[in-house]
Parts: sequence; structure tokens; C-alpha cells
Amino acid sequence: MRKNNNIIMSLRGITLWCVWLCLWEVSWGAVKQYKFDVQYMYGEPDCVEQVVIGINGHFPGPTITAEEGDTLHIILTNNLVTEGTVLHWHGIRQYGTPWADGTASISQCAIAPGQTFHYRFTVDRAGTYFYHGHYGLQKTAGLYGSLIVNLAKGKKEAFHYDGELNLLLSDWWHKTTLEQEVGLSSIPFRWVNEPQSLLINGRGQYNCSLAANVMKTSLSECKFRGNEECAPQIFDVHPNKTYRIRIASATSLASLNLAIGHRLVVVEADGNYVKPFTVDDIDIYSGETYSVLLRTNQDPKKNYWISIGVRGRKPNTPQGLTILNYKTNSATVLPTSPPPITPQWDDYNRSKTFTYNIFGLKGTQKPPKYYDRRLLLLNTQNLVRGYTKWAINNVSLTLPSIPYLASVKFNVNGSFDTKIPPNTFSEGYDIYNPPLNPNANTGSGVYMFQLNQVVDVILQNANVMKGQNSEIHPWHLHGHDFWVLGYGDGKFQQSDERKFNLKNPPLRNNVVVFPYGWTALRFRADNPGVWAFHCHIQPHLYMGMGVVFAEALLNVKRIPNQALACGLLRNVSIHKKHN
Amino acid sequence: MRKNNNIIMSLRGITLWCVWLCLWEVSWGAVKQYKFDVQYMYGEPDCVEQVVIGINGHFPGPTITAEEGDTLHIILTNNLVTEGTVLHWHGIRQYGTPWADGTASISQCAIAPGQTFHYRFTVDRAGTYFYHGHYGLQKTAGLYGSLIVNLAKGKKEAFHYDGELNLLLSDWWHKTTLEQEVGLSSIPFRWVNEPQSLLINGRGQYNCSLAANVMKTSLSECKFRGNEECAPQIFDVHPNKTYRIRIASATSLASLNLAIGHRLVVVEADGNYVKPFTVDDIDIYSGETYSVLLRTNQDPKKNYWISIGVRGRKPNTPQGLTILNYKTNSATVLPTSPPPITPQWDDYNRSKTFTYNIFGLKGTQKPPKYYDRRLLLLNTQNLVRGYTKWAINNVSLTLPSIPYLASVKFNVNGSFDTKIPPNTFSEGYDIYNPPLNPNANTGSGVYMFQLNQVVDVILQNANVMKGQNSEIHPWHLHGHDFWVLGYGDGKFQQSDERKFNLKNPPLRNNVVVFPYGWTALRFRADNPGVWAFHCHIQPHLYMGMGVVFAEALLNVKRIPNQALACGLLRNVSIHKKHN
Repeated sequence: MRKNNNIIMSLRGITLWCVWLCLWEVSWGAVKQYKFDVQYMYGEPDCVEQVVIGINGHFPGPTITAEEGDTLHIILTNNLVTEGTVLHWHGIRQYGTPWADGTASISQCAIAPGQTFHYRFTVDRAGTYFYHGHYGLQKTAGLYGSLIVNLAKGKKEAFHYDGELNLLLSDWWHKTTLEQEVGLSSIPFRWVNEPQSLLINGRGQYNCSLAANVMKTSLSECKFRGNEECAPQIFDVHPNKTYRIRIASATSLASLNLAIGHRLVVVEADGNYVKPFTVDDIDIYSGETYSVLLRTNQDPKKNYWISIGVRGRKPNTPQGLTILNYKTNSATVLPTSPPPITPQWDDYNRSKTFTYNIFGLKGTQKPPKYYDRRLLLLNTQNLVRGYTKWAINNVSLTLPSIPYLASVKFNVNGSFDTKIPPNTFSEGYDIYNPPLNPNANTGSGVYMFQLNQVVDVILQNANVMKGQNSEIHPWHLHGHDFWVLGYGDGKFQQSDERKFNLKNPPLRNNVVVFPYGWTALRFRADNPGVWAFHCHIQPHLYMGMGVVFAEALLNVKRIPNQALACGLLRNVSIHKKHN
Repeated sequence: MRKNNNIIMSLRGITLWCVWLCLWEVSWGAVKQYKFDVQYMYGEPDCVEQVVIGINGHFPGPTITAEEGDTLHIILTNNLVTEGTVLHWHGIRQYGTPWADGTASISQCAIAPGQTFHYRFTVDRAGTYFYHGHYGLQKTAGLYGSLIVNLAKGKKEAFHYDGELNLLLSDWWHKTTLEQEVGLSSIPFRWVNEPQSLLINGRGQYNCSLAANVMKTSLSECKFRGNEECAPQIFDVHPNKTYRIRIASATSLASLNLAIGHRLVVVEADGNYVKPFTVDDIDIYSGETYSVLLRTNQDPKKNYWISIGVRGRKPNTPQGLTILNYKTNSATVLPTSPPPITPQWDDYNRSKTFTYNIFGLKGTQKPPKYYDRRLLLLNTQNLVRGYTKWAINNVSLTLPSIPYLASVKFNVNGSFDTKIPPNTFSEGYDIYNPPLNPNANTGSGVYMFQLNQVVDVILQNANVMKGQNSEIHPWHLHGHDFWVLGYGDGKFQQSDERKFNLKNPPLRNNVVVFPYGWTALRFRADNPGVWAFHCHIQPHLYMGMGVVFAEALLNVKRIPNQALACGLLRNVSIHKKHN
């Protein structure tokens, strides 16, 4: 099948770069082609009409299902009127295809309106993933969808299940993303505030409640025919079976807690197996994915709530709800008990208990014992020239207009700060009573790693600018998994290293930093490219909460011209053709 | 001064193309440099807070004042987050600098976020102009400002005046431009509807009325300290003087009527002198500019309303108001009579009387007697694959992502339709009972003209798709003035040509087509470049109501790389360097 596809592609002769890409393609797996038309459209995610970003006329975007080893070829046409766009394939490591990571200003030029970009990359590992916009607040506007990679045929999962459900979770605002952006970059600063609704597979209810009959609410009961855009997607199950529930959080802001009125066995996190453990509900932060096993061992005469609620921030958003429908009942039968109560938002000990329980499944690759390089990254809120920003070691990331991948590799002068950002922060920094930090500034510098360097990152949380508060930050690394070596409260001390888990740490690409705490992770710089590492809370990233890692760029071989189609990069193109 | 500027620019060595541009620069006039930072910001144009596009933190953008012969060097930095942008210098012909016309998809690639573009062009003729966005609906979102070109020192105007006032008129919506765009390109179609407010120099009042004390209105009187963004700009005058009032209409939709309670002598239209004529009020269509002389010969103990109201569409927008303040009074003294009543919106005879009265001032260049080429352009509303469109000779313009100027000149294959659009429409077409027009389609074809060809265009209006109605369309030609040879009711006949005014037609770059009527114009294709010719009603252009003229492209010498910084054009760049 692969061969045929290649021939067809060559015959079509779409572009020269396609030809060599096709030839170079890895030899296992099929090529799965998707055509994605990205455009604004009317939608009613939470029953309130709004302009949303859709793909092929739908919100959320289509679910991509592939097999380990397949090559995905997504032909993205940007039909937004005046906005560029990109798509990031969250959790896919992009070995050999750093230009396909879908990060504007980092891996590629934003795709201009009317233009078509070809993403081609291998999904080399089974697991639960998703994709989303990575430009401005386009993710918040609805640019996301599920990406599920199944095991190659003949291979067996580490656990048994009879069926599979897929939950893509998100949060939703009635304020336009443009207004959110303007507020975040205004003096005085205006925060986006809490979302109006929580969505399960793009569906929520703002003006009514599914649970009006069983709980105290001023909202009336939702009445749906079922074909409404905001009608809940009901999940059918048979009694006494085991279901794998895939969960991905594409939230812009909200940390969530998911409960289904059944015990859940956590078996996968961010595309990696974890040591199974059983919980009543799970916490899931923006950017994280999980698989949990659910045994339908409850009363089959009833249906059950699937509910999500906000944690980690004082919530002002109703629970997101849908129904787990035992096929022994009609789908219209409502659960007879109220939905599970979301744990108290600031019960961080409960959150920590859940998170600290995640270990790599036996057989998970072990971390190198030693690191070559360590970064201590202090997370602070700062005022920079009157603007409210997040900064890492006093540098608030401002993305350049020309993507790093090309500008670092081809030495395009002046396109980013050549000053390398600091490896650490001042020893005397009091995370509980932070100084005013007048030296914080914006910057676009890059941390540079050599091939296969082992890098430790200690993320250090602190008090915010005003009042006594420290916020949760879920960090996400592109292009890699990392081992989560440990967490701790307070300021990281050299002695904390002794507590690092080098035995069975989970491999992940997302990790949370708890209030006033630190999180330690380790990864190997084995993927030539330029990779973002950032807080996955969209407005935090927008406010500068991220860093950029450039890794062994001499080893980056091919960047298609398409990824360079902006600004001064035309000179790069000339250079490439004549060298 | 010019020499010094060039040296400084060269020393700075900003970009290579700048060097030759500086050397090439015409030898008369000074270089006036402006730095424009384009960004979204909060604003209250009509006292209701909204997100608007501002320049350097202000809405509308700064007024540019220059002298005939000056070179304007506008350094535009795009600080919109994810949107490209351009600025069109409306009425400036751009001889020798077609790449600086500021039309996305036509003269240049949209400037990507974070990037800076250098517009350099000569303002070769004194007159009243303005500038505005020419990408998506960015003009509607507030991207505009005044551009006034004074006579060179020592030269005298054709009329005397003691002082000058400047009115930049526009219309304002509370619906976001994104939502307007989505509505216009949705099935079912959603019209933008009438504006909420009319603005004079970016200021209007939505929730209150300046004239509450003298007219019947449910709105309360506006109370201003004066420093509010939406407080009216009051125009000071001294009694018994003559004022030149410069007027430009940057409306998105509205045709306006302006009255000031004084007789007005029309002396300039679109940067050209006209034979002076006296009126009580003037009609002004989107894209038009005028100068009128006003003698302050009224009772100096009173102040007077400056009022604008909607014409040509059934209005649903209150008058825009401000005050002409005789300095003999305090600025806070309100006029004692109600504002002038805007003439009935559909009194087209009144509109025609005004428009048909405009002739070129004696000495205005006369049109060539004969044409080399004639286009009959039928304006129709059509359904194309379910979408509501405007079409010209059955072709609804869809702009390509790569600008014509480069793609036509350098033969970039596939970037636009090579099929040339039709010169005329079917003879049997009944403009009062139009057929269903099932053959209308979208297209991006270009009309090609040879250097110095004399081109006639007859714009033919018709019934809209539903009901008995025909709308006003103000057409604007880039890169040229044209002679307005005549107007007529009904369908243009060969015999109408006998009525053409070849004696003293006005030279303009905007002209209105009345309902069920035709308008004839003539121009010389003496400006190598690619030029838009379109209805200046922003949503109509968005729906495809325009055509593109490519003129003598072999004679286009220089296109700076900056204007080519998108898509396949990198290949052009390579080509240029090596030929």
C-alpha cells in the first residue's frame, strides 16, 4: 500500500520536496492522508452561538486514528481570512521531522491564509494524543482534535479491554479570543477569567443543566432531540465489560477532575504505560493524556454521570456532564443520583497524592543515572514595562516572527536574541516573598544542547505578583518524553536530589508544578530540532511562560521550503539551493 | 534634507533594497518618515468599549500631512497577533511603485505578524486622501487615517481659504469583524446589517445624543468632560472667514450625506479640482474625498451642527454629530436648532443631481477622444454553490494567496486563473428581471492591458437576487484617476455614447453606480502594475465585487523582496538574483 501511495504522489508531482520526503519515508506502516480545511464558522459548543475554529466544517476537528509506524500526511489548507495557522501534534516526538511539529515561530512559518501545508510525520508509538493550534490563542478558539495511535497489528497492549471510549476535554469562553489576547497584552492587564463552560468532545451546556432533576440548580433541564451541536455525546457500554477510556485535556486554562461513578485503573499517561493504580476519579491538567480502565460492574439498570469539574483555581464554571449509558437502559434514562462532587479546588494534597502515584510500568526505559546539564527554571509573574508577564529566570518569552528552526540552523541574523538565557536564578530568591524583580525582561533567547546530552530541568514555582498565592503550571515539552524524577514542596535544595526516583519514574511529556513547589525532570537531547518547553495554560504561554530548546541543529537534515515561507527566510532558501 | 536622509538610511543599512530605493528616489520633495505600529487595542469609538485596530496606540491612525513631491516612508510593524496586514494609500497613484499600493494578494504579500514593511512612495499631487487596511475586513475594524497632501511651497490653490478643517467619516459596528466575515461566508448567508454608529474623526455616541435637548429622542443628553475617546471633536472657526473642509469617507458600508447648516462650495474631489458649485449638503460615498469651502457667515452668537446621515440604504443608524464652534461662543454652547434632517435615503434623484453636477475645473486634463478597449462590467448578486456573492460578468473575485503583481510578472504557475475574465455580458440580460445566472462562478482571472491603452469601462447595475431592488455601488480604481464620462438610467446602449462628456469630465478615482443605472469612465493604462478596481463597500468586495487590471508588467522594474515574502514567491526571489 505504501508503495502505491508513493507512486501516486510522485505522479501528481505536487511539489519537489514531496518527492524526496516520499522516498525517505520510513519503511514500516502505511501513509494515512487527511485533508484539513481550517476555517472560522458558527458553532454552539455550549448551546450559545459563537464563532469557532473548525476543521472541515466541524468542531472539534476530526479524530485521527492511526497505527504505530504509520506516516500521517495531513494536508492543511488555511481558510482563515487574515490569520496564519499551524497544527501541533501533541505528544508525537517528530523524530527526523522537527519542521512538522506545528509550532509557529519555532518549527515553521505560520501557514498564510489561502495556502496549503503538508505535515508528514511518523507516529512511532501507540498511545493517546491530540492535536491543537499553536499560534496566538487559536487553540482556545477551538482548533483541536483527537489523535489515537493503536498498536501495530499483532502486538498486544499491556492490559486487556473489551471496548474503547474517547474523551477530549476542553474549556470554553464567550469572550472572543481576540478580546482575550487584547486583554492579556493591555495596560491595565485584563485576565481571561474562568471559562463559561467545560466541554466533553466539544459539547457542553451553558443555559441548562443535564442534572437539573437530581441536583439543586437554578438552571432548567436541558431538552435535546439529540442532533444539536451541544447535545451531550452519550457513551454506550455493556455491563460487566472492561472499557479503555482515552482522555486528553485540550483545555486553555482549566485543570480538571474527571469522575464516572466507577473505579478507574490508570494505565497510560502521555502515550506511555504506567504502573496500574486504582482511583475514584482522576486529575488531568491541560496537555495531559491518560488511559484508564473502567469495569462496568455497577447496577445495569441505571445510567451514570461522566463529569468534569475545575480544580487548582477557584472555579466559576459548572461541571461538564454527559452520560455513561448501560445499553441495558435507554440512553434517555438520566442517572438517579447527582453527579459526583468535584474535589475542593485547592485540596492540593489530594492532587499530589494522585500525581505522586504515577510510576513507569515495569519495562519502561530507565533514565540515565547522571545528567550533563541542569537548568533551574524559576517561574515568576512580573511587570515588564507595565505589562503583566510570566517569566522564566526573569526572561518572558516573546516569539520571533521567523521560526527558530531555520533561523538558528541557517544563522539568520537578528531574528532572535543571541544571548543565551540564564541556567539558573539567584540563590537568595525567596519564593514565598518574592522581590519586585525589576530586572525581568522579554526575550527570545534559546537554550542550546548538544546531541544526546542528558538534561535535567528543575521547575521552581513561587508566589505570584500580588497577594499570597502560587498557581499550578502544567509544563509540556515538545519533541521528547522526559522522566519525572520527583516533586517537592518549597524551594529545591541540592539535597532533594537524593529523593529522585531513578528506579521507575514515569516517562511523560507533560508534568505539573504544584504551588510553591518544584518538579524535576530529565531527558536526553536525542532529537535534532528546536523544541518548545512551556506552561500549557494558553494565556500563560501567551504571557511569556516558556523557553526554547535548540538541539543538535547540525543534525537536522531537511526542512521543506514550505516551512520557511516567511520573511527573511527567502535568503535561506537561496542559500540552500546553491550550497 | 533628502540627501542627509539617504545617507542616514544607507548608514543604517536596513536592507539592500532600501539602498537602491533611496538612490532611485525622485529628486523633488523631502522624505517624510512615519513609524506605524498596527495592533488591536481596546477603544470606545462610540462610547461602547470594543476591540479596534489602532496605529501607535490610537484610533483612527495618525493624520499624515505632506507636500506635493514628498516621498513618504512609512515603516509599518504588524503587531496583530496572528493576522497579516497591509495599508493602502487611497488615491495615491503609486507611479513607479506599484508594490507599495498596499493591497494584500494584489500588490504585496500581507505583512506577517511581527514583521516590518517599508512603504516608500511619492505623493505627486496635492489633495485630500486617506489610507486604510486592504485585507479582510480590517478597514471595518478601524484601520484607517487621513492623508493630506498640500501644494508645494510657492504654489497656489485654485481657490482662497483662511483655514482648514479635516473630517474623516466612518461607520461602526458592535458585531466583531470576524463575525461579520463568518456571516458573509456562511450558508445561510448573514448580512452585516446597518452600522450601530457613524463616526466623525473616529468619534460617535451610541448610548446618548448630543442633540437630546433640541430633538425628539429617547436617548439622554451626552455629558462629556471632553477627554473621552468618544467625545466629539469640536471644530473651531472664526466668523466671516472661509474654511476649506476636507472630507474623506472611510465607511465600510454607509453612503453618507453631510450638512453643516451653511452653504458649501465643492472645489475638490478625489484629489482633483472640480468646477465649483454650491450646495446645502453633500453626498459622499465610501472611498470618496472632497474639499468644500464654507463661509462662516451665519449668526456668530450660535454654534452649528456638523451632521452625517445614511443615504442609499434604508438607514437604521442615528446621525453622526459634532459641533462647528464659532469662537465667539464657548465650545460647550449647543446649537439651538435640531441637526439638519438627512435627505430621504432613497431619493436617488437628489443624489444624481449632486453627482451629475461634478465637472472638472477648467484646465483639468481632457480625456482621449477614442478608446482602445472597452469593458462592459455587469454587477450582479449571485448564488455560487449556495454562497451569496457579488459577481462581475458572472465572475466573483476570489483573491489568491500570492500577490498578482509578482505572480503575473514572474509567471508563477497556478497562483491565479489564467483564463481572462469576460469583456462583456450577454446582450439579452434583463437588468430589471435578471435570470437566475446559474453560470456565475468564483475566479481570480485578470484583465491585461498594454502600456498606454485607453480603456473604457461601463459599469452596469442590475436588480439584486431577491425582490425588486438595486443597490448603490461606489467603485474605486487603484493606480489611476479616470474621467467620468457619463451616467444613465437603465441598460447601457451603444447610443448612450453620444451623451458622453468629453469636454469637462471630472478626473476621479471613485465613482458611484446608481440603482438600475450605468456609469461610464475612461482611463489610460499608463501605470505599470497590477491594480484593483472594486466596489468600495467592504462587505461587497469581500463577497467578490471587484476585478483586477494588470498593466504593462514588463515595464515594472523593481519589486522589493519584502513585498514577495510569501509562499511560492521565494522561487521568484531566487530567479531575480540570478538573472
